[in-house]
Amino acid sequence: MTLSREGKAFAPSNIALIKYWGKRDRALNLPITSSLSVTLGQLGTCTTLRERPLEFKGLCQYEGDHLYLGDTCVDPQTEFHRKATRFLSLSRPTPETRYELRTASNIPIAAGLASSASGFAALTLALNDLYQWNLSIPDLSRLARQGSGSACRSLEQGFVEWHAGSRADGMDSYGTRLEVTWPEFSIGIIVLSDQPKPISSRLAMERTRETSTLYQAWPTQVANDLARIRPALLAKDIETVGQVAEHNALSMHATLLSADPAILYSTPKTVEIYHTLWAFRQETGIPVYLTQDAGPNVKLITLAAYEARIESIFPTVHWVHPFEACSATNQQILTPILNKCP
Amino acid sequence: MTLSREGKAFAPSNIALIKYWGKRDRALNLPITSSLSVTLGQLGTCTTLRERPLEFKGLCQYEGDHLYLGDTCVDPQTEFHRKATRFLSLSRPTPETRYELRTASNIPIAAGLASSASGFAALTLALNDLYQWNLSIPDLSRLARQGSGSACRSLEQGFVEWHAGSRADGMDSYGTRLEVTWPEFSIGIIVLSDQPKPISSRLAMERTRETSTLYQAWPTQVANDLARIRPALLAKDIETVGQVAEHNALSMHATLLSADPAILYSTPKTVEIYHTLWAFRQETGIPVYLTQDAGPNVKLITLAAYEARIESIFPTVHWVHPFEACSATNQQILTPILNKCP
Repeated sequence: MTLSREGKAFAPSNIALIKYWGKRDRALNLPITSSLSVTLGQLGTCTTLRERPLEFKGLCQYEGDHLYLGDTCVDPQTEFHRKATRFLSLSRPTPETRYELRTASNIPIAAGLASSASGFAALTLALNDLYQWNLSIPDLSRLARQGSGSACRSLEQGFVEWHAGSRADGMDSYGTRLEVTWPEFSIGIIVLSDQPKPISSRLAMERTRETSTLYQAWPTQVANDLARIRPALLAKDIETVGQVAEHNALSMHATLLSADPAILYSTPKTVEIYHTLWAFRQETGIPVYLTQDAGPNVKLITLAAYEARIESIFPTVHWVHPFEACSATNQQILTPILNKCP
Repeated sequence: MTLSREGKAFAPSNIALIKYWGKRDRALNLPITSSLSVTLGQLGTCTTLRERPLEFKGLCQYEGDHLYLGDTCVDPQTEFHRKATRFLSLSRPTPETRYELRTASNIPIAAGLASSASGFAALTLALNDLYQWNLSIPDLSRLARQGSGSACRSLEQGFVEWHAGSRADGMDSYGTRLEVTWPEFSIGIIVLSDQPKPISSRLAMERTRETSTLYQAWPTQVANDLARIRPALLAKDIETVGQVAEHNALSMHATLLSADPAILYSTPKTVEIYHTLWAFRQETGIPVYLTQDAGPNVKLITLAAYEARIESIFPTVHWVHPFEACSATNQQILTPILNKCP
């Protein structure tokens, strides 16, 4: 009894500068608007995948796909397991095929950094590796999207725009990379809570779309924000990039606040960081902006040159340099990451 | 040299359950949407007014209208003085007429409780008294509105709807009272700051209207909220009244958060109160809801029967019973208030 050959892949997490908020099709994860994110370089998810002979059990004693998170067998009753199994069924060679899937995040901080995005992107790449599909990035992106919408922005490094598309089958809804390399671009992560969200982003998104009247204007806002941020990214204009990203993130949280019942991911500490950041920016003129996802943690957008001064107000910030990897070849970066994969 | 006869009046403050946010005409204070508030009973502003012979100086040494806040002469360079003078000029019998105006709030807490609303309502009533105009409530309301928009909701006690109207001259934009007396209705005021707002509501309103894309949907939201709250007030349905008022207030703050630059009146303490209130409501089922105006302070909406239990989580809350005055005649209530007027 031997296991099949192995597919192995890494995919980075990503943080949206223009948020994905609201689906036009829940089954296919098709969004109401386009969105735009930056990947987190070497921070993300490693996944190894192989077909499992039915009689091979390992640590997971249950039937079906065996899913390991690090060294732990994932409970098949969890949403995580159900989503992974459903996703694998999109391309299972035969209905009887069963997988052993090992996945691990190398993110050193428990910040809820879009692990489903890097997870489904890595799983898509691992499938591509296992079966030697040699799919194009758009094809991989479309497939990953069906696991988790934002996963379609984690197939390539850098700034990636997820085109909403308009087709019912989603064939025009996938991510493409912007031709920008910006080594000085820096993301600061301030972790306030590593607890699970009180309400999942999936449910929050649905409630917003269904109950927030202000959300009616969200597609117009996103279109405006994308039109402003694209040229600003190409011009490496940190002021405009930061200002538009901050405005977009706060507007997303505004739609949540206007849902019924309201959803407020911010804690008192989140609001303290807002006010501290705004006062600091006004006093110093330093271009540092905030963004926030479906949780209380705050992410900063700035340039590497300003990090030391920003640490004077936020000593616990964790810096990520999305374009660090670009100074080496893909292989130089990927090999050590993949060697540490489970 | 004698001063003229005196006009004297009291007008209550009001707190909006459906917010006034955005003007269609700045000169006439005409709003984009209708709004609806509850007055604060015996809490408000007393004003005495008389014509001042030009040679009579008193404590104020300057030319023009003499304005006293309590015992203090108000600096004529202040916005407060300019607004009062401009308002008085709407009905000055001759261009040379000069007034002595004494005004005082009897609100025992420094909560920024719409003092301009009760102030201009009281001044309007004092003019009506001084000149024995015997104007109707709609006429008084239209005049008061030109001093401060929300003043048109402080001419009568109880729940008052300010009809936005559509005429360019504002003749159809004034407040009318809802035929509801609800003695159990209670407002709780939690004062977090008695500091001046970092940005005035007038400027915040303008920036929101000019820069918030989400604000485009605000008129639709207000129309929906008014359609829900009117019958709920008539039915004395505290759950619906509270829910709609809270949703409306949070949505107003959502439009502020989506302005560019964002405006966030909430402090960390405000957000702490939100979360505490929501957890308390979920745990106990007690109908207590929040509203918030252009500042960090939180106001609660509930019934008197629940006050003691609510104090267990918010010990500093100050209760106001808008309909307390209704158990006595207007004269019984007003005489002691007016006797304490400056």
